[in-house]
Amino acid sequence: FGIDLNSDVGESFSNWTFGDDAAIFTSVSSANVACGFHAGDPHHIRKTCEAAATAGVAVGAHPGYRDLAGFGRRFIDMDPRELTDEVVYQIGALQGLARAAGTEVRYVKPHGALYNTIVHHAAQAEAVARAVHEVDPNLPILVLPSSEIQRAAEKIGLRPVVEAFADRAYNPDGTLVSRREPGSVLHDLDAIVEHVLRILDGKVHAVDGTVVPISAESICVHGDTPGAVAMAARIRAAITEAGVEIRSFA
Amino acid sequence: FGIDLNSDVGESFSNWTFGDDAAIFTSVSSANVACGFHAGDPHHIRKTCEAAATAGVAVGAHPGYRDLAGFGRRFIDMDPRELTDEVVYQIGALQGLARAAGTEVRYVKPHGALYNTIVHHAAQAEAVARAVHEVDPNLPILVLPSSEIQRAAEKIGLRPVVEAFADRAYNPDGTLVSRREPGSVLHDLDAIVEHVLRILDGKVHAVDGTVVPISAESICVHGDTPGAVAMAARIRAAITEAGVEIRSFA
Amino acid sequence: FGIDLNSDVGESFSNWTFGDDAAIFTSVSSANVACGFHAGDPHHIRKTCEAAATAGVAVGAHPGYRDLAGFGRRFIDMDPRELTDEVVYQIGALQGLARAAGTEVRYVKPHGALYNTIVHHAAQAEAVARAVHEVDPNLPILVLPSSEIQRAAEKIGLRPVVEAFADRAYNPDGTLVSRREPGSVLHDLDAIVEHVLRILDGKVHAVDGTVVPISAESICVHGDTPGAVAMAARIRAAITEAGVEIRSFA
Amino acid sequence: FGIDLNSDVGESFSNWTFGDDAAIFTSVSSANVACGFHAGDPHHIRKTCEAAATAGVAVGAHPGYRDLAGFGRRFIDMDPRELTDEVVYQIGALQGLARAAGTEVRYVKPHGALYNTIVHHAAQAEAVARAVHEVDPNLPILVLPSSEIQRAAEKIGLRPVVEAFADRAYNPDGTLVSRREPGSVLHDLDAIVEHVLRILDGKVHAVDGTVVPISAESICVHGDTPGAVAMAARIRAAITEAGVEIRSFA
Repeated sequence: FGIDLNSDVGESFSNWTFGDDAAIFTSVSSANVACGFHAGDPHHIRKTCEAAATAGVAVGAHPGYRDLAGFGRRFIDMDPRELTDEVVYQIGALQGLARAAGTEVRYVKPHGALYNTIVHHAAQAEAVARAVHEVDPNLPILVLPSSEIQRAAEKIGLRPVVEAFADRAYNPDGTLVSRREPGSVLHDLDAIVEHVLRILDGKVHAVDGTVVPISAESICVHGDTPGAVAMAARIRAAITEAGVEIRSFA
Repeated sequence: FGIDLNSDVGESFSNWTFGDDAAIFTSVSSANVACGFHAGDPHHIRKTCEAAATAGVAVGAHPGYRDLAGFGRRFIDMDPRELTDEVVYQIGALQGLARAAGTEVRYVKPHGALYNTIVHHAAQAEAVARAVHEVDPNLPILVLPSSEIQRAAEKIGLRPVVEAFADRAYNPDGTLVSRREPGSVLHDLDAIVEHVLRILDGKVHAVDGTVVPISAESICVHGDTPGAVAMAARIRAAITEAGVEIRSFA
Repeated sequence: FGIDLNSDVGESFSNWTFGDDAAIFTSVSSANVACGFHAGDPHHIRKTCEAAATAGVAVGAHPGYRDLAGFGRRFIDMDPRELTDEVVYQIGALQGLARAAGTEVRYVKPHGALYNTIVHHAAQAEAVARAVHEVDPNLPILVLPSSEIQRAAEKIGLRPVVEAFADRAYNPDGTLVSRREPGSVLHDLDAIVEHVLRILDGKVHAVDGTVVPISAESICVHGDTPGAVAMAARIRAAITEAGVEIRSFA
Repeated sequence: FGIDLNSDVGESFSNWTFGDDAAIFTSVSSANVACGFHAGDPHHIRKTCEAAATAGVAVGAHPGYRDLAGFGRRFIDMDPRELTDEVVYQIGALQGLARAAGTEVRYVKPHGALYNTIVHHAAQAEAVARAVHEVDPNLPILVLPSSEIQRAAEKIGLRPVVEAFADRAYNPDGTLVSRREPGSVLHDLDAIVEHVLRILDGKVHAVDGTVVPISAESICVHGDTPGAVAMAARIRAAITEAGVEIRSFA
């Protein structure tokens, strides 16, 4: 029995560094690498791929809206056909750099506002699924369960890989508590570890105490918050102690 | 016996159109497709690749400096390692879109100031050759004869394909007359046709009348100047009438 | 009695030209000059300001979302405080170039998706009104009647200037027919002239025939569509023949 | 007797923070605020201007090449007329945000590669001087002594303000040792303080021991290097102990 741990990396740009990718690579099995539209320039992207390859971490494409000034965190009301092409472009670019770094793109996980949008926006979800399918129908895509992107991926013949979040609170219906709500992000390390261990058991406790079943193949850990590195290490240790292997799904 | 005709295409961006790619595709055998850094957005790039595929025109990557505001026509004093990664990124992105459009990237031709710089700038020439080699050592690269990029391509094991220019005046040493000099660009259609037919014979007449030998596998025709479409058609007709086949080198 | 004619200009960028600003300047009294975020680079902006100054046309700021790849035509779900600062930045930049060109920014008209959004999005409307007010409380702002931006402008103490559209169909409630609907844009020159003359009389005919009162100080004519220059000239001639003076409101 | 201390600030962008502007403001008298082309987005720029205003620090415009991906540290071979317009645009944008923040742009200091280029590149130096003059002939400009920009500023009627660098080694001819040379940047705090005190005395010791006279009205301290805040505080203390007042030149 195994589980994947994924984290966003490669988000440095130009003279600006972001996160501590090298440290995160000691804990996770999958690296969501920025593709240049919300973060990441070709040189940092390549270095990140090289480091992932060295650490034995699977490289995934982390495409976002073309919005460097907003870090891809703002919804853009794009034409779905244009969105498909923007996602193809980003995955293709990362494939080039990943290969130059001696590795391959193994999966896709959309970033930020794009990730959130395709939970509920059917047209953009279909646009993203189509993009991944056009690049390679064998590329799995990380999804929130019961999302439009999960449905769109299944419909077009992609493999959706359900993920859970290590430090996010859940609603009784299995969706994430909005970041605009108080208590949406867990900060207590012990609570996070308990939450992760429950995910391994196939459930989460919603904010109202409801037990919600979840069947996740991957758990997302954040790499860019204060204490992120320590949190990832702690989560890794707890999972390993529970006798569960941490390994990429891809 | 055959010759290739190549032209820059795919340089529309956002709401701005540039050139008449569809018309140019009736005359040329190779399409240098913008990769997004100096021109071209993913949607226009994809449409261009689809049109090239339909027209039976070979798609080449046309990477440039990251300089949308200058259309890639300004030298940027880049770190060679960063330049390598920027070129890998651009070729990879185009590969993604070309495949989605049902075709493949068959060669590389750098754009604008990058093209001009790697004629004489050894470090940037090596950076570009390394990028192409990292993506695929079988991708040929279009070069000016006797250039640093020709040497760098040969050294790393790429196939350099020498090109001549249909409407540019030559110096006695075989280099192009600088665009800053009067008479650098030929405008008279008859003179251009004569010039092209001489290239087929393995020579050009330099501005001082010197006959300069040149061995070109491809001839570049411009697609963006007034009268470009008519000029390309005229050149195609003249070459065909001379009994020479127009076909891609790639 | 007079009316203003306004048109979008200065939307060339880099090597891409857009519209025929010089020709439009012979017909309009107000020029909505792009500020660089959706279109316009500093050199083209300055040339546009110089041409407007020479033609005696009032310069207005035409700020948009930071979305060159979408020409500012896509809604972006921005933080209102960031939007305020982005609008201040754009107006300030244009003020610098307008003064260097010997003129001044006399008013503001938001562009594209931002214009459409602040018709109904109160928070973004307030953000834009605040930006204009911070730059100069005496700058009027062009608005659609009964819009959130009209309310926000009045509330903060700006002068909203109501405009009508020469070639757009109206709903019975006085709003514009969405561009996604058939018949939203008028193409017949005679129909457009009739429509414009009715606006001078204080009314428009909605798509269902209803007569809708409108009190417009300015009429927007498009500068970028095929036939735009001829349409603007025809509208100018019709207004002048009707004995109404075409003059800037600012 | 007084001296100015200046430092680069406002270089955060999007989700990326850069330097500790608040801490630097406790030591310097002049803030070179990024204008958005090499760093700085409108929201961070405005916050920086507000913090400078609160701290009583003079705001200067810090325009650079349009090169976010290179942080403005790469020479771009721009057309001088376009460079003028790009600098006018940046200063105008900052003026808008500075006024919204309750302060004013009091001087100009070009950034990075642009700063280095106009030491020796007459055409770009004249382009920059012309831009500043067009915005406001009363704006002083910070310059390296004996540079092309000093000459261009004097010629057009601007006030050039000579600056020295707190942590840079000097050549015997008064120029800075290139960053590509070993020993170009001083790291020892005591050596830096000695160097600064000599500048107050009107001289620097070149790398070969030569005593070079320098007449600086301002000293540049870096804000973005490790230990920058402590270094700035130490320099401030040393100058104050020497009985010299730290005050803006503008």
